[in-house]
Amino acid sequence: MIVLFIGDIVGSTGRAALKQVLPSLKSKYQPHLIVANGENAAHGRGITAAIAREFYELGVHAITMGNHTWDNKDIFEWIDDEPRIVRPANFPPGTPGRGSTVVKANGKTLGILNLQGRTFLPPLDCPFRAADELIGKLKAQTPCILVDFHAEATSEKIAMSWYLDGRASVVVGTHTHVQTNDDRILPGGTACLTDVGMVGSRDGVLGMERSSVEYRFLTQLPSRFTVDEGKWQFHAVLAEIDDATGKAKSIAKIRLTEDEWLLMQ
Amino acid sequence: MIVLFIGDIVGSTGRAALKQVLPSLKSKYQPHLIVANGENAAHGRGITAAIAREFYELGVHAITMGNHTWDNKDIFEWIDDEPRIVRPANFPPGTPGRGSTVVKANGKTLGILNLQGRTFLPPLDCPFRAADELIGKLKAQTPCILVDFHAEATSEKIAMSWYLDGRASVVVGTHTHVQTNDDRILPGGTACLTDVGMVGSRDGVLGMERSSVEYRFLTQLPSRFTVDEGKWQFHAVLAEIDDATGKAKSIAKIRLTEDEWLLMQ
Amino acid sequence: MIVLFIGDIVGSTGRAALKQVLPSLKSKYQPHLIVANGENAAHGRGITAAIAREFYELGVHAITMGNHTWDNKDIFEWIDDEPRIVRPANFPPGTPGRGSTVVKANGKTLGILNLQGRTFLPPLDCPFRAADELIGKLKAQTPCILVDFHAEATSEKIAMSWYLDGRASVVVGTHTHVQTNDDRILPGGTACLTDVGMVGSRDGVLGMERSSVEYRFLTQLPSRFTVDEGKWQFHAVLAEIDDATGKAKSIAKIRLTEDEWLLMQ
Amino acid sequence: MIVLFIGDIVGSTGRAALKQVLPSLKSKYQPHLIVANGENAAHGRGITAAIAREFYELGVHAITMGNHTWDNKDIFEWIDDEPRIVRPANFPPGTPGRGSTVVKANGKTLGILNLQGRTFLPPLDCPFRAADELIGKLKAQTPCILVDFHAEATSEKIAMSWYLDGRASVVVGTHTHVQTNDDRILPGGTACLTDVGMVGSRDGVLGMERSSVEYRFLTQLPSRFTVDEGKWQFHAVLAEIDDATGKAKSIAKIRLTEDEWLLMQ
Ligand SMILES: [Fe+2]
Ligand SMILES: [Fe+2]
Ligand SMILES: [Fe+2]
Ligand SMILES: [Fe+2]
Ligand SMILES: [Fe+2]
Ligand SMILES: [Fe+2]
Ligand SMILES: [Fe+2]
Ligand SMILES: [Fe+2]
Repeated sequence: MIVLFIGDIVGSTGRAALKQVLPSLKSKYQPHLIVANGENAAHGRGITAAIAREFYELGVHAITMGNHTWDNKDIFEWIDDEPRIVRPANFPPGTPGRGSTVVKANGKTLGILNLQGRTFLPPLDCPFRAADELIGKLKAQTPCILVDFHAEATSEKIAMSWYLDGRASVVVGTHTHVQTNDDRILPGGTACLTDVGMVGSRDGVLGMERSSVEYRFLTQLPSRFTVDEGKWQFHAVLAEIDDATGKAKSIAKIRLTEDEWLLMQ
Repeated sequence: MIVLFIGDIVGSTGRAALKQVLPSLKSKYQPHLIVANGENAAHGRGITAAIAREFYELGVHAITMGNHTWDNKDIFEWIDDEPRIVRPANFPPGTPGRGSTVVKANGKTLGILNLQGRTFLPPLDCPFRAADELIGKLKAQTPCILVDFHAEATSEKIAMSWYLDGRASVVVGTHTHVQTNDDRILPGGTACLTDVGMVGSRDGVLGMERSSVEYRFLTQLPSRFTVDEGKWQFHAVLAEIDDATGKAKSIAKIRLTEDEWLLMQ
Repeated sequence: MIVLFIGDIVGSTGRAALKQVLPSLKSKYQPHLIVANGENAAHGRGITAAIAREFYELGVHAITMGNHTWDNKDIFEWIDDEPRIVRPANFPPGTPGRGSTVVKANGKTLGILNLQGRTFLPPLDCPFRAADELIGKLKAQTPCILVDFHAEATSEKIAMSWYLDGRASVVVGTHTHVQTNDDRILPGGTACLTDVGMVGSRDGVLGMERSSVEYRFLTQLPSRFTVDEGKWQFHAVLAEIDDATGKAKSIAKIRLTEDEWLLMQ
Repeated sequence: MIVLFIGDIVGSTGRAALKQVLPSLKSKYQPHLIVANGENAAHGRGITAAIAREFYELGVHAITMGNHTWDNKDIFEWIDDEPRIVRPANFPPGTPGRGSTVVKANGKTLGILNLQGRTFLPPLDCPFRAADELIGKLKAQTPCILVDFHAEATSEKIAMSWYLDGRASVVVGTHTHVQTNDDRILPGGTACLTDVGMVGSRDGVLGMERSSVEYRFLTQLPSRFTVDEGKWQFHAVLAEIDDATGKAKSIAKIRLTEDEWLLMQ
């Protein structure tokens, strides 16, 4: 199966990019399953039910989250009824929503696991132990498993990729909003990329308006960050998985700016 | 001029890679100036005078550092006499060594500035204000300036690139040891890349032996990290700068594994 | 002179306590100068002009701040015109307001310096170097100097007390909202206390409603903290300074609950 | 029963103080059970088997630890065989040693639980959930339970005290090495104190030699901390617990300097 995983979609700029780009990526790559990180979809902070619906209508089959899961408070009302959304599985027991799910589309079945790192991030349960437990459960349903490890530190992300080598089909990182250039397939058959990058403003800082971020670094004064509305960039990763074994056959980065995309039309 | 900047060289594995690769990169790209980050050169922790000499003999013109600058205690004895090494300029006043330098080679003159981020790192002086001051001084000697911003957070690194757009020729990041895929030239003529990546073991974690890192994440017990001795990977960036204006004309990532390199020979 | 320094006053509960207690403390101890930390005075977040005025009317001569200085946005409009309020002096150059001030009352003159720590707190300029510079300036006006070092880590706070021993009359800490039991006079004549504590709800957590804090620790979910409205506790410190030399003659902690105070009336 | 809990004993200075003071405290207060935090007993870093034995011979019945538990590597060889030592219970499953224990002495039985905070400290399992589980187990053996919550943040420590109110007899904090002045008995019968303080050098910084700590704050350069050898200070807490109900009847801080103690002899 071919899986397209799209990095953190940031605000209206990111959503507009998705709407523009996804149809052409679908025709070009024919992915069986499309997964996107949606933690910044609503004004950079969380996601709404309406935005999730918009993503499904565009062809996204499942949505992963991260440290911004709860920024939009409405989510508490509907996340339990939404099997297509996963939030980090290593949130404490009793947290609303689920940490893993299984999606079926185009005749394929994919297990999806969302985890969050703890280095430079709030103290959660151990993501490595959460992975052990949930990958075991997902394996009972399908050998093909995608992990979105939402984390800051490259050490934690790379350690996780190796930890899951041979157990997950794909381990990708999100959260830094910058795509890394280290796509590879590990010896056990797990495709990985430290960070997929994001979908949002090209000339902002992580998708947010640049001057407000610069202002905070320079002055240490409070500064409200808003989604930047300039031209977009689009980051994703494409992986091919052997349906029978769950081993990755290929992984490729997608990096596209609005200008490049317009030239291609 | 053509500048080759090489990411954090980690231990003996990284040094061996440098020795193998650099001659061919020199013939292939003909860089006028070669700069390398050396903060992890000695067993992953700091640098020695002998290693610095080894780098110069291989053709490196200047060495930048970072949060590991002082790990090898000997450096206090010789850093003041070594104009080719820069440590982060925003260390407190009175810190041994220098934060910026000017190197001349092959008829070209390059100003070099080393800065360290403060997000998820120890509290130093403001790197943005340090940049303001030192870029002004370097500009008096040459329009061509390379900045190595040694930092963890993508937000701080991208904010710095934009902050220096039009003032520095090249702003590259180091420290995460993972190359990012966001090389570009900003509107003001500054080439940038959030992180150059590293030179060291391909199958370790950030160049260190993998199982000891995994052990610490899983057990939270102390664990001694040693340089991994497996096959290497080599990350660098190549930038072309207009000598007269100091504006960047191009930037290109270099990502090479030992296996790929052997095939090329 | 006798100086009364009052710890972080938290919200309406803290303000009510101040209003009740201060008159009796004034008659009992006859302080020449009264200084209070006001960073949490407005609903736990910052201070308003009206609250500052209320404090002055109760007899407070000067107000110190901390990491919550800017929480109430109005302050940017009036802090520059308010010489009785000091915010941490090691905020970056150009920050509104001032980091030190000199107040005169009851025939006495006191220099006041506010600093903020950097351990477990945002990266500011070095508080030790800021102290060097500003204590020098204040000394030109008076030998009697009070420092409020708003910081988290006991190591940083104790290091600062010793660093300023013989240069400041009193070095007190704020920010943790818990009074420490280590009041003493150092050999050089500087009275110190690692943390003065706070004025606010006795049965909350740091003055805020308890269940919302507990909820966040247990669930790692967002939780809005509001000022707790139960019975109050009042923490302050009383120091006697030799007017001529600036050396401290005594330091005493004040710890008072609403119930104890009512019994005393 | 009367329980004496002694704060972090730091290095040889702290151990000498213990040796001098403990006999007189035993005669004065007649504690049935004596517990001490030993995480800094060996040169400020961890504990050795010999030091633990020394503590037992002086009358200490049990030893609690903290983030420095593993600093002295020998401990891995003997901690499993030492039921009188507890390390934080919320270390990951499989960690050597135990997180809780039951000690019997002088006809009394006390359950002891050690927990570590996660704010400004490494990511461990949730201390609140660990407390739920282990207090349940201890309650099966005795109603009298002492908790040493080794943590940095006052908010986390106070939240824990309230969380365990009515379930633990005594909840004391350690780790900051500074005694707090907030001893009280909560409505449910739990005696608490945010931090007990330490036993070690009076004029160092947290028991370590002062100038090396100051040097690091000022220069941000590496600096080796060694135990300060000057005069000592001794901090502890004394609690009386109703044997039948496990409710605290009183709590009192002990704060003693070497000079004060000599005068008392
Ligand atoms: Fe994100
Ligand atoms: Fe995130
Ligand atoms: Fe490095
Ligand atoms: Fe580094
Ligand atoms: Fe406060
Ligand atoms: Fe504060
Ligand atoms: Fe300690
Ligand atoms: Fe500790």
